[in-house]
Amino acid sequence: MPATRLDLARIRAARRDIDPVFLDTPLYRCEVLGRELGCAVSIKLETANPVRSFKGRGTELVAGLLDGQGRTAAVCASAGNLGQALGWSGRRRGLDVTVVASRRAPVAKLDRIRALGAELELVDGDFEMARERAAQIARRRGIRLVEDSLDIETCEGAATIGLELADGAPSFDAVLIALGGGAMATGVGYVLKSLAPEVEVICVQPLGAPAMTRSWHQRRVVTTDSADTIADGVAGRYPIPAVLDDLLTVADDAVLVQERSIVTAMRMLLERAGLIVEPSAALGVAAVLEDRDRFAGRHVATVICGSNVDLDAYHRWVRT
Amino acid sequence: MPATRLDLARIRAARRDIDPVFLDTPLYRCEVLGRELGCAVSIKLETANPVRSFKGRGTELVAGLLDGQGRTAAVCASAGNLGQALGWSGRRRGLDVTVVASRRAPVAKLDRIRALGAELELVDGDFEMARERAAQIARRRGIRLVEDSLDIETCEGAATIGLELADGAPSFDAVLIALGGGAMATGVGYVLKSLAPEVEVICVQPLGAPAMTRSWHQRRVVTTDSADTIADGVAGRYPIPAVLDDLLTVADDAVLVQERSIVTAMRMLLERAGLIVEPSAALGVAAVLEDRDRFAGRHVATVICGSNVDLDAYHRWVRT
Repeated sequence: MPATRLDLARIRAARRDIDPVFLDTPLYRCEVLGRELGCAVSIKLETANPVRSFKGRGTELVAGLLDGQGRTAAVCASAGNLGQALGWSGRRRGLDVTVVASRRAPVAKLDRIRALGAELELVDGDFEMARERAAQIARRRGIRLVEDSLDIETCEGAATIGLELADGAPSFDAVLIALGGGAMATGVGYVLKSLAPEVEVICVQPLGAPAMTRSWHQRRVVTTDSADTIADGVAGRYPIPAVLDDLLTVADDAVLVQERSIVTAMRMLLERAGLIVEPSAALGVAAVLEDRDRFAGRHVATVICGSNVDLDAYHRWVRT
Repeated sequence: MPATRLDLARIRAARRDIDPVFLDTPLYRCEVLGRELGCAVSIKLETANPVRSFKGRGTELVAGLLDGQGRTAAVCASAGNLGQALGWSGRRRGLDVTVVASRRAPVAKLDRIRALGAELELVDGDFEMARERAAQIARRRGIRLVEDSLDIETCEGAATIGLELADGAPSFDAVLIALGGGAMATGVGYVLKSLAPEVEVICVQPLGAPAMTRSWHQRRVVTTDSADTIADGVAGRYPIPAVLDDLLTVADDAVLVQERSIVTAMRMLLERAGLIVEPSAALGVAAVLEDRDRFAGRHVATVICGSNVDLDAYHRWVRT
């Protein structure tokens, strides 16, 4: 069992605390996509739930914990998906949820955060500015700050995807995971390294937002001055040291992909798999596109982690 | 328990014979869609599997039965989805599968039937011509003819969707089911009337292909001379008497919807739920659009039965 902040027994127990609507998501081979990519491709689909991303797995744990502690309010920074998920999980438990997001986040994400009854505050800067502002709100109001990837519940919630991958198919050679703050990558990676250590855990990040990947390669926190990618869900600049430590333990590789590969991957997921996905969800396929030889003839699983995308932007990128 | 050709114990047992990749599909509330439709909407998503439709549930039973009987070949007529599913289920069991389809069926469906290793024969007429030709092939070659909706396995396979709906949520007021040959409508309807008789079972068919709906209302088989709808999956003209008998027992209503409502429903499923669906899968939402008062404030579930659509046609209809 790799030594990280995560715990396999807790992750197994977490399944009981997560609303079943987020669990046991589809896992299936997509032959048409695989044929085009030159390898066998299995899709783990995390979009068919009330918030259209995997984040509900983690926020169910967070909100359940806060509720158990008698807390009545929480605040988080979000690129858009965590905010929806915390809004959903909080509403069920009567928690007042405040979400801080960048004004540049996709309108679809911002609208749905509001629709879930959360208070939404917008900042003019990027996600890192939203993080600062959320911390400030937490201090001023004396409410709990939920920090994606740092809060172990967000990692262990995402880690339940790993349980389903490990149970579902003994035959994967590699799993491709979008890398942002690191909750999903450390969570899924930890479970796979614990239960199926022969499976290669490959994290994928956009070249335009490479902070965590560079940090992984240099084995120390590397920050960047800016992030420039359409993959808004993974566009952080300040990796969290504790999360990097876990990632160093569980990831076999971290790779960067170009924007045009992300767009091609989104188009292939539409044309070959019939799926509308947000850019972050296309990172795995983009990684195969950029290194076909590495994956030729192998069986890869990729987590389709979200489908919250502005359709206008989507059509502009994919040119449908 | 309503008296039909179907049997609840057999349907429960069928779950053991169906590959799990087709079972326990996502069932979730889509609030954004519900808000626009003026009612609570739950989606039962049957597209996240290797054949992108619910038909695998039935073909798993059919192919397992044939395999158990030592058969080595089968033929079916298909609008496109049954052929893919029988191809998939047959290939796993070493069955030679022949599919007869209309030359006018969506190219995407025809390509995928071939890709699954099935022999594909095209006829110049419509689905009813394909049925005649498939029967002829079965007689000449002495192989088993698989008949959608008539073969009880196709109905009881689809009926496992009903088990999941009945288990999943006690609170539906109505379930909206696409009506074509009747396998899904009789299957899901039978289980709901057995286990949750208070749930209204509403079948939905296009006005341009109304044979089964007219038959249901007139309580006798009514055929039509032609079918004119974009919903290729449900465009039959000759209802099967035994299936009509079952439908008369389990359906509370059968309604017809206009083509423009189907298109609007497809667009809403894209814009509000992030789902690309084939026209047949949009029939339930189309029915709500055409009779908002009937569903106002109620909780409806709709089965998103397939996503095999030619993207060019899709974009032309939905104008994305």
